[in-house]
Parts: sequence; structure tokens; C-alpha cells
Amino acid sequence: MTQFSRLVRFLAKDGRTYYGDAILPAGITDIGKARQARVIRGSPFTTHEVTDQVEDVRMLLSPLARDDIKTVRCLGLNYAEHARESKMPIPKYPILFYKPVTAVSGPFDPIPVPSQAQEAPSLDYECELVTVIGKAAYNVSAANALDYVLGYAIGNDVSNRIWQAERGGGQWSLGKGFDGWAPMGPGIASKDLIKDPNNLRISTKVNGKTVQDNSTKDMIFNVRDTIAFLSQGTTLLPGDLIFTGTPQGVAMGQKSPNWLKEGDVVEVSLEGVGTCVNKVEYEKQRSKL
Amino acid sequence: MTQFSRLVRFLAKDGRTYYGDAILPAGITDIGKARQARVIRGSPFTTHEVTDQVEDVRMLLSPLARDDIKTVRCLGLNYAEHARESKMPIPKYPILFYKPVTAVSGPFDPIPVPSQAQEAPSLDYECELVTVIGKAAYNVSAANALDYVLGYAIGNDVSNRIWQAERGGGQWSLGKGFDGWAPMGPGIASKDLIKDPNNLRISTKVNGKTVQDNSTKDMIFNVRDTIAFLSQGTTLLPGDLIFTGTPQGVAMGQKSPNWLKEGDVVEVSLEGVGTCVNKVEYEKQRSKL
Repeated sequence: MTQFSRLVRFLAKDGRTYYGDAILPAGITDIGKARQARVIRGSPFTTHEVTDQVEDVRMLLSPLARDDIKTVRCLGLNYAEHARESKMPIPKYPILFYKPVTAVSGPFDPIPVPSQAQEAPSLDYECELVTVIGKAAYNVSAANALDYVLGYAIGNDVSNRIWQAERGGGQWSLGKGFDGWAPMGPGIASKDLIKDPNNLRISTKVNGKTVQDNSTKDMIFNVRDTIAFLSQGTTLLPGDLIFTGTPQGVAMGQKSPNWLKEGDVVEVSLEGVGTCVNKVEYEKQRSKL
Repeated sequence: MTQFSRLVRFLAKDGRTYYGDAILPAGITDIGKARQARVIRGSPFTTHEVTDQVEDVRMLLSPLARDDIKTVRCLGLNYAEHARESKMPIPKYPILFYKPVTAVSGPFDPIPVPSQAQEAPSLDYECELVTVIGKAAYNVSAANALDYVLGYAIGNDVSNRIWQAERGGGQWSLGKGFDGWAPMGPGIASKDLIKDPNNLRISTKVNGKTVQDNSTKDMIFNVRDTIAFLSQGTTLLPGDLIFTGTPQGVAMGQKSPNWLKEGDVVEVSLEGVGTCVNKVEYEKQRSKL
């Protein structure tokens, strides 16, 4: 049983890193606006206690420490209109791929673009509801699937379309897996707070202009069905993340794509959770393969 | 600097689990034959010490504890003849996919086949050299790539071809990621012991009959090139595993495929490392999606 409402991981003014339960000003639901948090003692996945110790938030970090994240699963083409804009058929089964844990970064971290992914203008954004697994799930039914959830965050499945489509023999992984290409946060809203994960507004702005704006209602495979599907013969572990796909409006789907470029600011938002704000930063040239 | 020659993780006769340096009888190189080991104190990835404490091995386990394994990467079609038997073009870039950490199992564990993967006769084996990353690698050159290696093991990239090919929208992941579908071991031969990972005999037997028998020389992208490629813009972490692809001889490549079935015993072997022996065990029917 989670005790927190909005799990954050943060650097405090005392210079230490804590897990905490975000304290939001009245009328504010964006976890990214938290300026204080009650310190959590223990692991958010097991016995833990929200203490009375209140700390000032200097910076929100990825809501889970790297060692607390296990496997990062992602769904492709899980919104019908996005499948259409990608000129792909509506999938009969969820399309599963993975990111490495090193892709996960914080809600306000820059998106580093390595030299190897700068050469072609094909950098894209994908706002996605991220389901965080809270306890081990094996062969669970859709009806019971949400019992295994810790909570929800918003994430950006950053993608280089040329690597994704042309340089992996059909496998998408390298073009979506570079360091920091899965910023997420700003915190994890507990499942007690988000009663229905498939009735939330989800959106993206690039440099302040809305480019994706939809509802998680429009998922082809909803959160319950996705967990049931992925748990088939496969144990989902506490700390597993599931990026559940993106709605239409990605650059790839546009007639004249506005690919992301150096300095662009991408904001991905989920109702009841908040907004991640990430700036595209090209890395200086390094030795290439 | 690793101090061990052959890292094993084992259940000892005292009922405890240890990391150890395998002690092999004279003339034996198969780590799976270890009956004793010197206990290792500390993490094999950081400061550790091979002690004088010798324990009897009751059972060899997956050579890395689950919490010590980070991302599991795999290459597809990395031997030319295997690409041909799969009727696929020789890849220009390494084909990357992932398995979840829950797929990794021990060298003598059964391969559990969940009910969802029993319905079609398409269960296949793939013997693969597994490279274990020992220290963080980012944008490393092929020339220096082996500096980042802890050692090598043999693994089996167990695959359900129908799930792999037909039920993932082209992404292979679900059909290769079920629990226990990446047995590996029997231990990790240190890179000091294996001077050239691309000059080793690699083979598979099914029920005692040799079905794959080749050399790691025949990799399209050798171990050095693979590490350099995968480290592009991506930090490989200590405890990352890379399954480096399989040579020809898989069931899928045969005119009348001998798909694996309940009770079959699969042995995958790598010169200088040893043999994993895994029996196919169908799980009893469970509720299906």
C-alpha cells in the first residue's frame, strides 16, 4: 500500500537527495510546481513512511533512482490516429520495444543529442503516459491489472526516425535509446490519485506551440490490457516502467515535419500529473565509429 | 581489474549463495564442472577479493544476481550464414533488440514455456556468446572496447518464432522475452582468460545431437565493433549483457524444422567457458488473456 500521493525524488537545499511526497500550493496539480516535500523513509516499493520532515526542493530529479528502475518497456503505435499518421496498420497485438535504463532522465533535464544522431534532421517527440509497476505481476488479468501499479508519470519517448526506421534492420531500439531520451516525471501520481488512467488529457508543446493534444481514452490497448498482455509468461517487476505510446501530432506525421533542433524546448503534460520541460542540447562532436 | 578467472554464483552446501572463483579439476575448462570455488568478497564490478575460503558448490546459479544485471541487449542476424538461413539480408548495422532482466536464468535451469507460447510449434534455440560489461562505456572506440569487458559467458537466446515474427508489429521482443528465456553461464570467463572472443568454437546440441557448430570468428560485427557501436551516445553500464547473435543451424532455418518441445534438453557451449544444459518444461495451462 502506497502512503504517498505524489512521489518525487529531489535534491534538497541541504544538498542531499530524497524521495518525498510533494507538497503542492492550493489549486495546483502539476507536481513540477512542488517547492517542498515530506521526506519518505524506506523504499517506495516496499514498506515506507511519509515522515513529518519537510524539505525545500532545489531540483526535481527522475522520480526513480536508476537502481530502482528495472526494465523499461514501450508500446509503439498505441493510438489509432498516430498509427494512421505513421502510415502503419492498426496493430492487432501491442507492439513492444525497450529502452535501456540509461535513457531515463529527470523532468527538467536537457535532452542530449549525441553526434551520431545529429547528422540527419529526424529528431522527434512523443508524449506518453508512463505506468510504473509497484509489485510483481505474472499472468495477471486485465480486471486486476491496476492492483500492480504504483502510479503514473508523463514521459517523452524521444526518437530519431532515421536510426529507428533505417538502421536497425526493422528493430527500433537504437534510435530511441540514447542517454537521456526518456525524460519522465515530474513525479509519480499514485494510483489512488489517478482513478482512471485512460481518461486523462495528454499533450506536447514545442517552443510554446501545442503539437499534440489528446486523451489517453484513445489508446488502442488501455493500461489494464497492456499490463495483462505484457505479464503473459513474463514477470513484471517493481520498478518496471511502461511507456504506453503516443497520440497523433509527432513531427514524422506532418507534411513538412518540424523536426526538433538544437535549443528547442519540449513540454509534455499529463492531466493530474504535470509537465516535463526538456531542452534539446546537441553534444559537441566526438569521435565517431 | 578483475581478480577472478572464472566467476560463478552458486548455492553452497552451507545453504548460502556466494560469488566465487571456480576451482576446476586438472585438464577441465568447462566452468559447469566446478565442484568447489573460492569465495569472492565484494562486488565483481568494483573492488573485490578472491579469498582463501573454499566452499563446495551445490548448484551453479545465473552468474550474476538479478540486481547486478542492468540492460540485456541482443544482436540479431550477426552471423552471415544465419542471416541467409533466415532469408534476411546481411545487415549494414548491428540489429539491436532487448530482453528483460527476468529472462536471465541459470546454466542448468529449465526453460519454462508459458501457456501463451505453447500453442504453436515454433520454439527455437540460439547459442550466443554473451559479453558482460565491466565498467561504464560511452562512445568508446573498437580499439579500446575490450577494456570495458568483465568477461564472457555462453547463453541461449530462446525464441518463439510466431510471436517474434507475427505478433509484435515487426518488433521481436515479446517472443524472446519470456521468463527464463535467456539461460546463461555456466560462469563468466574473465577477459584475461579469453584473449580473443572472436576465435572460439560455439555450438548447440538438442537431445545430444549437434545442431549448431561454428566459430565466433564468423560474426559479422565482432565483439569490439559491437561494443563501440552500442556505446554510441549510450552509456553501457557495469552489469549490462550483450548477446552477440547466433550462427546457422537454428530450427527455423531447416526445411522440416525440429522445433523444441516439452522435455527436450538443449546444451549450448562456448570454448573456454563451458556448457549450459537446459530442459524445456511446458508450464501448466493458466488463464489466458
